[in-house]
Amino acid sequence: MKLTILKDHLIESIGHVSKAISSRTTIPILTGIKIDATLSGVTLTASDTDISIQSFTASENETIKIIQLFQAGSVVLPAKFFIEIIRKLPAQLIEIEVKANFQTIIRSGSSEIQIMGLDPDEYPLLPEIEESKMLRLPSDLLKTMIKQTSYAVSTNESTPILTGVLWNITGDKLKFIACDRHRLASREVTVDNDNAQNLPNIVISGRTLNELSKILPDQNSLIDIVISDNQVLFKIHSILFYSRILDGTYPDTSKLIPQSFQTEMVVPTKELAEAIDRAYLLSREDKTNIVKMMMQEDQTIEISSSSSELGKVTEQISLQHIAGDLLKISFNSKYMLDALKVLDSEFIHIGFTGAMQPIIMKPQDSTNMLQLILPYRTTN
Amino acid sequence: MKLTILKDHLIESIGHVSKAISSRTTIPILTGIKIDATLSGVTLTASDTDISIQSFTASENETIKIIQLFQAGSVVLPAKFFIEIIRKLPAQLIEIEVKANFQTIIRSGSSEIQIMGLDPDEYPLLPEIEESKMLRLPSDLLKTMIKQTSYAVSTNESTPILTGVLWNITGDKLKFIACDRHRLASREVTVDNDNAQNLPNIVISGRTLNELSKILPDQNSLIDIVISDNQVLFKIHSILFYSRILDGTYPDTSKLIPQSFQTEMVVPTKELAEAIDRAYLLSREDKTNIVKMMMQEDQTIEISSSSSELGKVTEQISLQHIAGDLLKISFNSKYMLDALKVLDSEFIHIGFTGAMQPIIMKPQDSTNMLQLILPYRTTN
Repeated sequence: MKLTILKDHLIESIGHVSKAISSRTTIPILTGIKIDATLSGVTLTASDTDISIQSFTASENETIKIIQLFQAGSVVLPAKFFIEIIRKLPAQLIEIEVKANFQTIIRSGSSEIQIMGLDPDEYPLLPEIEESKMLRLPSDLLKTMIKQTSYAVSTNESTPILTGVLWNITGDKLKFIACDRHRLASREVTVDNDNAQNLPNIVISGRTLNELSKILPDQNSLIDIVISDNQVLFKIHSILFYSRILDGTYPDTSKLIPQSFQTEMVVPTKELAEAIDRAYLLSREDKTNIVKMMMQEDQTIEISSSSSELGKVTEQISLQHIAGDLLKISFNSKYMLDALKVLDSEFIHIGFTGAMQPIIMKPQDSTNMLQLILPYRTTN
Repeated sequence: MKLTILKDHLIESIGHVSKAISSRTTIPILTGIKIDATLSGVTLTASDTDISIQSFTASENETIKIIQLFQAGSVVLPAKFFIEIIRKLPAQLIEIEVKANFQTIIRSGSSEIQIMGLDPDEYPLLPEIEESKMLRLPSDLLKTMIKQTSYAVSTNESTPILTGVLWNITGDKLKFIACDRHRLASREVTVDNDNAQNLPNIVISGRTLNELSKILPDQNSLIDIVISDNQVLFKIHSILFYSRILDGTYPDTSKLIPQSFQTEMVVPTKELAEAIDRAYLLSREDKTNIVKMMMQEDQTIEISSSSSELGKVTEQISLQHIAGDLLKISFNSKYMLDALKVLDSEFIHIGFTGAMQPIIMKPQDSTNMLQLILPYRTTN
């Protein structure tokens, strides 16, 4: 293999695949980046077995020649050093040449770097995915859905299925659901009916979806999502992002969500979040994160927390609307803040069915999102 | 104590003193901030015994009333929670009221915070410093001198005196010197002779000087520096910054610096720093940081490093000038990069007296700064 490539384009491609590089090295060759050079361009591959990412740089675009190929070929280079040194090379033009035993020479300006490369044949093959089951989503919508749900996945590896986000497809509805034992987040969208036929429910790791989110472009381009038995492939322009599908059956969460409420209120989101944030500051010092909400006769709520050592925070918030019994309820303020952060609406609707029952939050004028947190059992 | 104060002004004052708050709590009251309110304004005090900082906010400035005092008094509030909650209060106007047993109520908008305060009489008194021995330096010059020397102090607490920067005053020259067992940095300036009379040599902790540097204003205002037997006081507008003077005698470093050279060269600083940085990336992987410099017949130097596992980096640099024997010398690239970073000059002069002797670096056309690093003994 021998070629020259423009530094900025190589750095961009490295940036895409770097999210899949293993830091834990059970398979030593996966600490490397695979480089494949052909006449049409250069493909970089990185994988940590859960996620594999491939990024293709074409030899030329409309305006310039990016890659000049002298000899096609492949090599695997140690990722950490390769990424750092490429970023710091002195000139735009970078020459990469692979010699005997995968010894690789990188030249740029007056720098010459020799790297011991590894045999590309030892690099694991990426899964082959049949393109029969497909779904198409706008990039920014997918990004938003990930943000609104993935924060609620379980971090406890003892029930691996709950570390993922469920993609539930019923008719033309696609619903994302994430939950741990204390909270649940769901978001639903309508998808193109032709594409959503015959699609099974799948569960994808929350961590993986967050990595995907960093690669997804902000502008509204369409992402093709191909689903196979145990892998899902996201096609993002010149990037292929492969993820493992989590094994197991996702629990039925529908029965957790009450259908009617004992108390309902409409609250200004930002005011509520800021008041809870101040109460959280104090509760955090006691390592409990417990904050109380007390509904009052005058259409206000009092948010409060107290710490035996430090003191007390008390906040008053005027409600837009309240109907039903006046409750006193305690909750984990950190969980509440996480939920409020993704409820992208000036006012939110909160429903209660009792001081020990789930708290349900939705945007004021939308039913496509739901955030649930369980209250704390406290003695007063 | 009872007053109202504008949030932005309180936050600014907190920002100044926060650098002196103890995180290690051998004296519990020092985890607090002391607040003293008088008719003229509010003084905040924080101290970690090495550093004490006092910041004064006047009741009014030319344009606005900042503080309204209802009752003078003092209190000590737990710093971490106080700082966080003040930053997050909903309104500009903050009311602070101290009740019985130093119970403190903070009100802002619809928030009310109760904090258990502590007795201000238990807070240690700041040192009283007689203003007989004084020095005056422009703020930006002091900042530069700190930057150019403090990086070289020892981090090894077994010789505490070397963790400080020596302030050596001889006639109208003030010289900062820092050194550990591998390198030395010095910077000299001419000071106003009247002020520098009768001033003893002092040693101030490098860590303290770095904290001071964060408070020093960028614009060219004059800082009064008052020196007593064991304390030094920096007066920065409305801030008083007290530092302990380190005990002990600073070693005589003058004999470390050669007076003539076997080889001298003039090198472009940025090119040298970037080449060494690339070589450092590789040497770091071997955890040695060793980089080699080889002088060549054609008025160039080769910078290189190698790692048995990863490979080799080789760099060529054209010199502006070289005279004397062609040497091959090895050094700690991290130390060299630290020194190059503060040598604020397009070209630098490097002097050598042999492969095992100190390397001396100076700006090309200035003698007021000197950076020294010791080479490595290597087998080739």
